[in-house]
Amino acid sequence: MVSADSEPRPPARTRLDPEARRTQLVELGLEMLSTRPLNQLAIEDIAAAAGISRGLLFHYFPSKRDFHEAVVRAAAADMLARTAPDPGLPFIEQLRAGVEAFVDYVSENPAAYVSLVRGAAGSDPALQAIFDQTRTEICHRVFERIGAEKPPTRVRLAVRGWVAFSEEAVIDWISEPASDLDRTDLIDLLDAALVTLVAMAAAPPTSG
Amino acid sequence: MVSADSEPRPPARTRLDPEARRTQLVELGLEMLSTRPLNQLAIEDIAAAAGISRGLLFHYFPSKRDFHEAVVRAAAADMLARTAPDPGLPFIEQLRAGVEAFVDYVSENPAAYVSLVRGAAGSDPALQAIFDQTRTEICHRVFERIGAEKPPTRVRLAVRGWVAFSEEAVIDWISEPASDLDRTDLIDLLDAALVTLVAMAAAPPTSG
Repeated sequence: MVSADSEPRPPARTRLDPEARRTQLVELGLEMLSTRPLNQLAIEDIAAAAGISRGLLFHYFPSKRDFHEAVVRAAAADMLARTAPDPGLPFIEQLRAGVEAFVDYVSENPAAYVSLVRGAAGSDPALQAIFDQTRTEICHRVFERIGAEKPPTRVRLAVRGWVAFSEEAVIDWISEPASDLDRTDLIDLLDAALVTLVAMAAAPPTSG
Repeated sequence: MVSADSEPRPPARTRLDPEARRTQLVELGLEMLSTRPLNQLAIEDIAAAAGISRGLLFHYFPSKRDFHEAVVRAAAADMLARTAPDPGLPFIEQLRAGVEAFVDYVSENPAAYVSLVRGAAGSDPALQAIFDQTRTEICHRVFERIGAEKPPTRVRLAVRGWVAFSEEAVIDWISEPASDLDRTDLIDLLDAALVTLVAMAAAPPTSG
């Protein structure tokens, strides 16, 4: 995220090339999204923080919605990068590392995450698509690790359901802090839930 | 939903008392929500279907948002009523009946349900509150049935997570119909997931 230039860059009203300016604006949006929900991400505040006019911001992002989309896309990419599996580890350790990174990411960026899951995923089809792609990417990571690129539907639903389970559990844990469940306990719970659910789904159904 | 009057009611331009008119408009909204998402629920179409002017509709619902809120509230109440447990049955049968009713409700009203879960739950705080209350009510039903009004956090998160799991699994199943998982298999999966997750969460954690 930091430029490789050795010269420190003056903070405001600097002439940036278009790509650098876009990146700067999205990063400011991401920063703000760590403390407030997406629908409170005002264009005016971003422009002020970047030291540019509202009009110039609209030059880079034709509408507030375009800007929000770019920020949500960056939030999703950030979360996926933070939770990327280390292929050098055994599956169960990859899973744990991924879950740890996920819990920490959501703990550090609750508003961004809740925006991604609930707010952003709302009525806007473009944001809904980012949300779906993110969830699908997480599922594919699990499928690859369990050696089932095209798993049976029971397993696919169990894994997709587990992602939703984890999102809900972490959001609930952050919203109502509990003295009887610390970070490690939460990670244990999410870990165990995946192993349990996949084992359950992979076993032949016992319909009765 | 059907009036107890034995006389058939003429379809349009009838003078209704305000409460009956409100109910009629919300029911028309619910009906339309069974085939299209909330953000495509146009006030004009509702007014036309009710045989009233757009202006009169706004007399009952000051804004499109107020109307959407009333419709989403009715959709949530409808879903909760459809899935209400029968206290005369043993827990495991109550669970199964509730899950069956839930799967059928979502299958019959996919757009309404997806609007409630994803669309509606989006950036609007009032709709988000309806969504949260609905999820909380389902969890309380489970807590009551397992005899734990104030469960430990592990169990609370497991049950809340299971509701999210079930929502995701049913939406995924509807969106990508599968030849290897029929309605009964899906109900089995959701049933088994709750039993498995609660058992896992209620057991002492085996943190490593």
